[in-house]
Amino acid sequence: MNNDKRSIQTRNAILNAATNCFAAFGYSATGVAEICNKAMVSKGAFYYHFESKEAVFLELIDAWLSNLERTLEEVVSRTETVPEGLLEMADNIQPVIENNPEIMGLFLELWTQASRNEKVRSATIAPYHRYQEIFAELIQRGINEGTFKPVEPVIAGQLLLSLFSGIFLQAALEPGGANWGWIMHESLNILLKGLSED
Amino acid sequence: MNNDKRSIQTRNAILNAATNCFAAFGYSATGVAEICNKAMVSKGAFYYHFESKEAVFLELIDAWLSNLERTLEEVVSRTETVPEGLLEMADNIQPVIENNPEIMGLFLELWTQASRNEKVRSATIAPYHRYQEIFAELIQRGINEGTFKPVEPVIAGQLLLSLFSGIFLQAALEPGGANWGWIMHESLNILLKGLSED
Repeated sequence: MNNDKRSIQTRNAILNAATNCFAAFGYSATGVAEICNKAMVSKGAFYYHFESKEAVFLELIDAWLSNLERTLEEVVSRTETVPEGLLEMADNIQPVIENNPEIMGLFLELWTQASRNEKVRSATIAPYHRYQEIFAELIQRGINEGTFKPVEPVIAGQLLLSLFSGIFLQAALEPGGANWGWIMHESLNILLKGLSED
Repeated sequence: MNNDKRSIQTRNAILNAATNCFAAFGYSATGVAEICNKAMVSKGAFYYHFESKEAVFLELIDAWLSNLERTLEEVVSRTETVPEGLLEMADNIQPVIENNPEIMGLFLELWTQASRNEKVRSATIAPYHRYQEIFAELIQRGINEGTFKPVEPVIAGQLLLSLFSGIFLQAALEPGGANWGWIMHESLNILLKGLSED
């Protein structure tokens, strides 16, 4: 194995270990020492890759939120109509929730840290504003294609984003408490009815 | 001032100080010492009233979630139709957000702790299930009074709860980022249209 490959593996091991530690113990209660232990790397290796615990957290947030953004844009560009795209997104939620319990914990930790750490706050708000734009554009596209009546795109987009966020929040608390994908799908159907042309 | 009155004042001072500390520094990073400092009470006084930091947090959650439940039930019992009651709730949200920045921080902290502390989790899930029931009953009442079409009450109630939670979550991140009361009001109008009889 060459050095580049080993370096990437070390970096990924740190990121994975940090995800688990933050989700399990929280951002505040996790130290660089715990992350190194879990990742089985030295502190030297850690500081070679990251400046601080905060830097790791910010990179995790960025990777996660950007990935979500790409998925959104990919689904939107592929499906024929906006309602179809939205329902497909809803159906994609259940596997994400079921297969990533640690991501759900991290999602909550992200919001909490965002409310008290200015760097985390900026790193969270920026992609969230992009989601608001993406959803508003979706609504505008639905109006243009004639599946939605002429609502205010910013408001209706915000409604969609709130619905997704709210269900994600409850799913983070009780991953096995309900079939969240089904709840999302059915909720969306009610919403789409409210947005549709009479 | 008699002893009972002083005792209640001390208790309230501890609860207020804890609210501020948890919101500002987080649950993990807050110790009994910080709460005592902020409340200007001795550790002896603290432990006379509360067994632990966790006990204070659980009492804060309980007071807050029960209060929300009472408000919900009061609005619902007073208004003529379900849509009226829901819109009134939406309109009540903006002052809550504007006047209670520390409550918003605590709201996030609550969810995070709930994902990793079993006692906090139970204390959060139980009232949340009651909210789900209250919203489902609201939908059923709307169906009975003829303002809603016969949707599945559990799903539509879940949709309402998700919308409220999702907007609250975003408002916690950016209290001044938008007029959240207005967004809630307009979002609800779209939703009510989806729920209404054709």
